[in-house]
Amino acid sequence: MTDISATPVRAVDLIRKKRDQGELSREEIVGLVEGYTSGQIPDYQAAAWLMAAVIRGLTRAETAALTDAMLRSGEVLDLSDFAASKVDKHSTGGVGDKTSLVLAPVAAAGGLVVPMISGRGLGHTGGTLDKLEAIPGFNVNLSVADFCRVLHACGCCMIGQTAEIAPADRKLYALRDVTGTVESPYLICASIMSKKLAEGIDALVLDVKTGCGAFMKKEEDAVFLAELMVETGLRMGKKMVALITDMDQPLGCYVGNSLEVAEVLDILQGEGPNDLRELCLELAGWMFHLGGVVPSVAEGKSKAAQLIKSGKALDRFRQMVEMQGGDAHVIDHPDRLPRAQHTIDVSAHRAGYVSAIECESVGTACVVLGGGREKKEDSVDPAVGIVLHKKVGDRVTPGETLCVIHYNSEARMQRAKSLLERSYRIADAPPAQARPLIHRVIQEMSK
Amino acid sequence: MTDISATPVRAVDLIRKKRDQGELSREEIVGLVEGYTSGQIPDYQAAAWLMAAVIRGLTRAETAALTDAMLRSGEVLDLSDFAASKVDKHSTGGVGDKTSLVLAPVAAAGGLVVPMISGRGLGHTGGTLDKLEAIPGFNVNLSVADFCRVLHACGCCMIGQTAEIAPADRKLYALRDVTGTVESPYLICASIMSKKLAEGIDALVLDVKTGCGAFMKKEEDAVFLAELMVETGLRMGKKMVALITDMDQPLGCYVGNSLEVAEVLDILQGEGPNDLRELCLELAGWMFHLGGVVPSVAEGKSKAAQLIKSGKALDRFRQMVEMQGGDAHVIDHPDRLPRAQHTIDVSAHRAGYVSAIECESVGTACVVLGGGREKKEDSVDPAVGIVLHKKVGDRVTPGETLCVIHYNSEARMQRAKSLLERSYRIADAPPAQARPLIHRVIQEMSK
Repeated sequence: MTDISATPVRAVDLIRKKRDQGELSREEIVGLVEGYTSGQIPDYQAAAWLMAAVIRGLTRAETAALTDAMLRSGEVLDLSDFAASKVDKHSTGGVGDKTSLVLAPVAAAGGLVVPMISGRGLGHTGGTLDKLEAIPGFNVNLSVADFCRVLHACGCCMIGQTAEIAPADRKLYALRDVTGTVESPYLICASIMSKKLAEGIDALVLDVKTGCGAFMKKEEDAVFLAELMVETGLRMGKKMVALITDMDQPLGCYVGNSLEVAEVLDILQGEGPNDLRELCLELAGWMFHLGGVVPSVAEGKSKAAQLIKSGKALDRFRQMVEMQGGDAHVIDHPDRLPRAQHTIDVSAHRAGYVSAIECESVGTACVVLGGGREKKEDSVDPAVGIVLHKKVGDRVTPGETLCVIHYNSEARMQRAKSLLERSYRIADAPPAQARPLIHRVIQEMSK
Repeated sequence: MTDISATPVRAVDLIRKKRDQGELSREEIVGLVEGYTSGQIPDYQAAAWLMAAVIRGLTRAETAALTDAMLRSGEVLDLSDFAASKVDKHSTGGVGDKTSLVLAPVAAAGGLVVPMISGRGLGHTGGTLDKLEAIPGFNVNLSVADFCRVLHACGCCMIGQTAEIAPADRKLYALRDVTGTVESPYLICASIMSKKLAEGIDALVLDVKTGCGAFMKKEEDAVFLAELMVETGLRMGKKMVALITDMDQPLGCYVGNSLEVAEVLDILQGEGPNDLRELCLELAGWMFHLGGVVPSVAEGKSKAAQLIKSGKALDRFRQMVEMQGGDAHVIDHPDRLPRAQHTIDVSAHRAGYVSAIECESVGTACVVLGGGREKKEDSVDPAVGIVLHKKVGDRVTPGETLCVIHYNSEARMQRAKSLLERSYRIADAPPAQARPLIHRVIQEMSK
């Protein structure tokens, strides 16, 4: 708290205003973000404002202004030299959610440009960058120039956040993490949207997860965040849609970085589990529709299915992997992907039907195995994970395999096994009603 | 925000708990206060917790635990070698509120020990230390040893906060000042009570001001804070009372440090304005009553009046001034007090009755003249101030003097005059009902 008297009085006024449920003007929010990013406003004032914002909430106008100010704190990619529509997809995070790796090449093969900047695993959820790095040699740390070069050549490129993109978000996120100010739809919206809009896109498809494996367990919370993000994008002139999708059990059957890449290859080869394929087609359908390639989502879905069937999507994936330094041989030989040394079955203790899978525990089991980070500085083991043999509604007999653990450490396996045994619920009858894969589609605000 | 990963996880949990309306345990609050005072918990985490506490509020148990932890962050005076009761009085601050200077010698002359640690002017209100320093030579910065020596010799001593007393409060207050977290009855209570209880007192009389010249404009807010402080003191085994008293117009007729000392001398000589005398007697009555000197407040008031009439209180004041290095000649020759170079009248523009005096503006006018601080680093001019010739209910004729400004700077006088002209309201009739001097007495909680 050095030189407290020198801090600008204005920051205190902005803190008090939000504390007292006032609405900040666009200029005031810009002053706050610029002041904090430049170091003129100290951490303690930003922390007080963030807490007031978490508890009091932000208006739609404040949320848009905050997003815009964070976006403008760094570089906004200029992709105006691309004739095609620039479309991205963003998921709020789940377990077994590997759709990005399918969607980027499918959309690119269908004529869109997909400048995808992704994140790493957070908490119990997996991260696109960690999955891509399971492909030996794959480089997610490209310069903006190389990113554009790959985009020009193959229509899609997948990288991590660069230092140039939304530095205000990086600084604010680090502060939020240690001040109990992460859990706010307004701040989450601004963080996500500032990074996505910095990609220079025309349209964005949001996959907002809900259920026990999502950050938003309650559907109403997912809908609230989705509406906020859609409105924020619309205010900035982007085409927007949000799908509220199910994350009450893992998506697909493979959880773990290397395993998930294998399942992506299955989908791109026209195989793989139904839920994952269906969600990929639906999201791709929206990307093609918003990108102006087809007049309806249904036609977009057909187009995506066709691109998979023809092998064009897989070819595009191969090209992207090669251009980003990855070993493209894994595409035809998935056994070249990192493999765990051991496997062990988790078996049913009784007969019946799988009535529920505690999805967050499955994600945590994968983290415990080493497939995610328990602490920030942990490295990730790409090989470990879980293959689900049974999903909700499936019939099981006593001793039958529910899932298989792929592991490299006996101690870690024991912790994961205990989590997985408790995560499967078996009942006499299957659940009366299956949860739909897509709960809702949000294009305009409900209010 | 250096080394963010090294900050203890626990602080974040305490922030989240308060954010989510949870109640912190005594141990958790001690951990927070000790961690912050020692520097283990950084400013930004403390700021986030403070904002959550301001908005969510604290329970009575949390408020008491916070007070106690702040109290124990420093030295608690051990006055157990005094046979007499140790009693103090604290006011939440007002305009023309100079009762402390009367009460300390009156109570001491009546057999109590008054270890009074006071503050400086804050905002538009005056401060006891600034008033005492209007007496040439008076030293408010005594060591704890010298403080006890004066107490032993004359029964009262008036000083400023020392480095040893409640360091947690000093650090937290500096942070609150720049993070918009000042205005919270819970935090105000903990700040006041931690310092007062560090004086090693047995009983405390609180003078909680309400009205347009007080920090708590609304009586309900004053009552809420008063109840909180009374309960906090009772929980710590102290005898407590809070008087809710009127601050809708200045107390007495003199506002300004040197002028207020002169008015104190008038009261101690059995003269001075009725409202000030009455409040001093009431507060002294409670001090004698809580201190066990008399069986009732009424008898305490009589005792105080007698001590003034006999000259014993004035003698005690003289003794304290001498022992604290002040020029005791001013007591018999108030013209030796610092005097402003110029005076100017503020006159009535019409006939009628004074219906209201915008009390905060009078306080601000005194600050503007140089009698208080507009910025922290400003020095105070002891000589300047305002003498009110008319108070609420008084009849005025056109051109008659409402008040007289004592000033040393023409420019400052002009600003103050403009404030004072607008602060007097003159109506055709006097106010239908006069506001009582004492609105309420709080000894136990209403709920």
